[in-house]
Amino acid sequence: MNILKKRLKELELNPPRVLALGFAGLILIGALLLNLPIASKSGESIGFVNALFTSASSVCVTGLVVVNTGEYWSLFGHIVIIFLIQMGGLGFMTLATLVALILGKKITLKERLIIREQLNQETMSGLVKLTRYVIFSTFAIEGIGALVLSTRFIPIYGLGRGIWFSIFHSISAFCNAGFDIMGNSIVPFVGDITINLTIAFLIIIGGLGFSVYIDISRNKRFKRFSLHSKLVLVTTFILIIVGMILFYLIEWNNPETLQTLNTKEKVISSFFQSVVTRTAGFNSVNMSKIRDTTTFIMIVLMFIGGSPGSTGGGIKTTTFGAIFLTTFSVIRGRNDVVAFKKRIPQEIIYRALSIASIGLFLIVIVSMILTISEEANFLDLLFETTSAFATVGLTRGITPDLTSFGKVLITIMMYLGRVGPLTMAFAFAKRQKNIKENYRYSEENIFVG
Amino acid sequence: MNILKKRLKELELNPPRVLALGFAGLILIGALLLNLPIASKSGESIGFVNALFTSASSVCVTGLVVVNTGEYWSLFGHIVIIFLIQMGGLGFMTLATLVALILGKKITLKERLIIREQLNQETMSGLVKLTRYVIFSTFAIEGIGALVLSTRFIPIYGLGRGIWFSIFHSISAFCNAGFDIMGNSIVPFVGDITINLTIAFLIIIGGLGFSVYIDISRNKRFKRFSLHSKLVLVTTFILIIVGMILFYLIEWNNPETLQTLNTKEKVISSFFQSVVTRTAGFNSVNMSKIRDTTTFIMIVLMFIGGSPGSTGGGIKTTTFGAIFLTTFSVIRGRNDVVAFKKRIPQEIIYRALSIASIGLFLIVIVSMILTISEEANFLDLLFETTSAFATVGLTRGITPDLTSFGKVLITIMMYLGRVGPLTMAFAFAKRQKNIKENYRYSEENIFVG
Ligand SMILES: [K+]
Ligand SMILES: [K+]
Repeated sequence: MNILKKRLKELELNPPRVLALGFAGLILIGALLLNLPIASKSGESIGFVNALFTSASSVCVTGLVVVNTGEYWSLFGHIVIIFLIQMGGLGFMTLATLVALILGKKITLKERLIIREQLNQETMSGLVKLTRYVIFSTFAIEGIGALVLSTRFIPIYGLGRGIWFSIFHSISAFCNAGFDIMGNSIVPFVGDITINLTIAFLIIIGGLGFSVYIDISRNKRFKRFSLHSKLVLVTTFILIIVGMILFYLIEWNNPETLQTLNTKEKVISSFFQSVVTRTAGFNSVNMSKIRDTTTFIMIVLMFIGGSPGSTGGGIKTTTFGAIFLTTFSVIRGRNDVVAFKKRIPQEIIYRALSIASIGLFLIVIVSMILTISEEANFLDLLFETTSAFATVGLTRGITPDLTSFGKVLITIMMYLGRVGPLTMAFAFAKRQKNIKENYRYSEENIFVG
Repeated sequence: MNILKKRLKELELNPPRVLALGFAGLILIGALLLNLPIASKSGESIGFVNALFTSASSVCVTGLVVVNTGEYWSLFGHIVIIFLIQMGGLGFMTLATLVALILGKKITLKERLIIREQLNQETMSGLVKLTRYVIFSTFAIEGIGALVLSTRFIPIYGLGRGIWFSIFHSISAFCNAGFDIMGNSIVPFVGDITINLTIAFLIIIGGLGFSVYIDISRNKRFKRFSLHSKLVLVTTFILIIVGMILFYLIEWNNPETLQTLNTKEKVISSFFQSVVTRTAGFNSVNMSKIRDTTTFIMIVLMFIGGSPGSTGGGIKTTTFGAIFLTTFSVIRGRNDVVAFKKRIPQEIIYRALSIASIGLFLIVIVSMILTISEEANFLDLLFETTSAFATVGLTRGITPDLTSFGKVLITIMMYLGRVGPLTMAFAFAKRQKNIKENYRYSEENIFVG
């Protein structure tokens, strides 16, 4: 035990590093399980690269798949996948805390720090309470979602499969995983209001982040919310509406997607597609048939993604909001970035800038490399890379045809996207902790733009 | 006269607005001249949209063309074009100052302010001197360039045409305009060291910006340079080398571009292509034949562009440098952005962030609209849009086939790119000048990423 402690100390387990290594470990365990012959219906192993890809896609709640999830995997495989999704979605440390709670152990300061990092919670107090609350709410919301879905799935698939499908897809939706075991995402249910709205609702809640619900349930009125919650809610709302309108306008007369639907169905699926694009990865229309314009819009929406501390990916709504507000301030000739009569600190603006530029850099580099290693169209590869980074899971249909090299690259991208590029950097970059911040270099102007 | 003054006051002619309107006026005059029948070899008018496009492309030193410059236009047309390029490159206000100097008039404070905005010069003192210096150096450098080029062009094209071609291409290169009257850019001279190096050298000098030369000629040693000059030189150097290596590695075995050349020619044309991509727009290999990977790299390099206060476009090397340094600082856990032992002010970082995000936004929006209005491939449209915004002028060959709507959109993009998105915003956005900066809103944290 003491040896273990010493080893941990040697590894310098700062919270971001534990997070990064924990996710990596979970992915590896998942890969080993999915690599087993019993995981597939055919009884043959899928091969390590494909198992690793599927495990990473589950843990990182991405939803990109190399085989049809419903048709290829056995019940054992499905259980492993949904388990990995739940672990990944809730966050392995939240679960570790759960285990600690159950075993009656005291939670150490270090463990609290890890949870804090993961849930993006500022105060240390009440973290155990928060974790308990997070886990309880997750199961409650997923339970309600499954109940509602079962009213539609049981009549179609029978009692046993209906319940199993309801649970699977409720978890998958809440965790923004995008995995489905129905064969063709929810394309067959493109006009089904109950299924569409339930799944969309689960996705939205899962993508807001727990700090926002806590704020909502505590403070009730928008005016009293924290700046963070206000930004998350406003940005999410605007992005959903803008995405919905654009999707409708560009696809309404596309014979391969919306044209054959009636107006109600057109509106529902535009709404649905706008919601899922930002991180969830379900699709009610075929992604390889949408127009280039829509594809490009979706790449932008995917890049922005969900909100911090949620099951969503991307650079996050608040990062996008902070960048937008900074640009707006500069145009107006202001020195401060102000939102809802509060000033956003310079440190946060710098951080937002870093997150966006690292994200952009990763996507550019990876899609560039893929244009060399893969045969596919540039736009499809850019879509696939962004989808992986933002843990969205939508695809133009090229995932199964990727080379092993391409699959490994996309696996790495899903991992980096989920852990977060900045957390990743914090985990392994050499940080200058002992800089005397009271000594500052003198300022000098440069010209930009 | 008094009426004119009053009208000018009513228009609230702040420096950015004069700049924006001045460029627009020059483009319009150029369009009217190029629309004349005598501007074309055939004696028929090219039509207003095409004339406007060509004029904007000349004034904004972009170099995108709807017709073959060498074959279509008459000598009159060529003279108009090179005149517009020289006016655009030097900046219309610098020329206005020249006129004022010649006529012996006193330069007003307002005029000085305009020059200051345009040349990005910080101090007001010595602006007249600076302008004189800029104009003199421009003609001197262009003269030397023309002399060197003539040693190659006179033997090929004869005395008269040789001299004219040398002057035209020296101006076009120094102004980073990318226009050529040889028919196929410098593709026929792909292995010609003198021509390649002269043009590359003119382009590099033109793309550095005058404040950098002044710094170099005054302070001689790198260590004594301003932070601005250091950043410009280092970023330019790194971008040229990285671009050259990537172009060589990806294109060396492409039968349509580099494969048939010998090693010396391969290295020269990789170097040349890396230099011109960032803003100049000449090409020694056919752009529609390069690989998707190279195309994408070139889009990124075009977006970064030249340096502030130069004839180059894009978001500028220093903007890119500032963003890179901020990201690096955040990863290292520093609160300040430091380069060469100097701190870059927060205001500049915010400005860099704004420039990059407005640029990105414009490119996304315009290329999105083009995917609807045009028939071309997505990557080609993204390339064209970025090329227009960064006033580069490279194309995958789709410019002549654009619809009139597409041409107007690209014209607007060239204009916005040249004036600069932030200058544009400063020119016409309602700015809050009277905000009491001693009153600040209280800070509140948000979570990002
Ligand atoms: K997903
Ligand atoms: K150019």
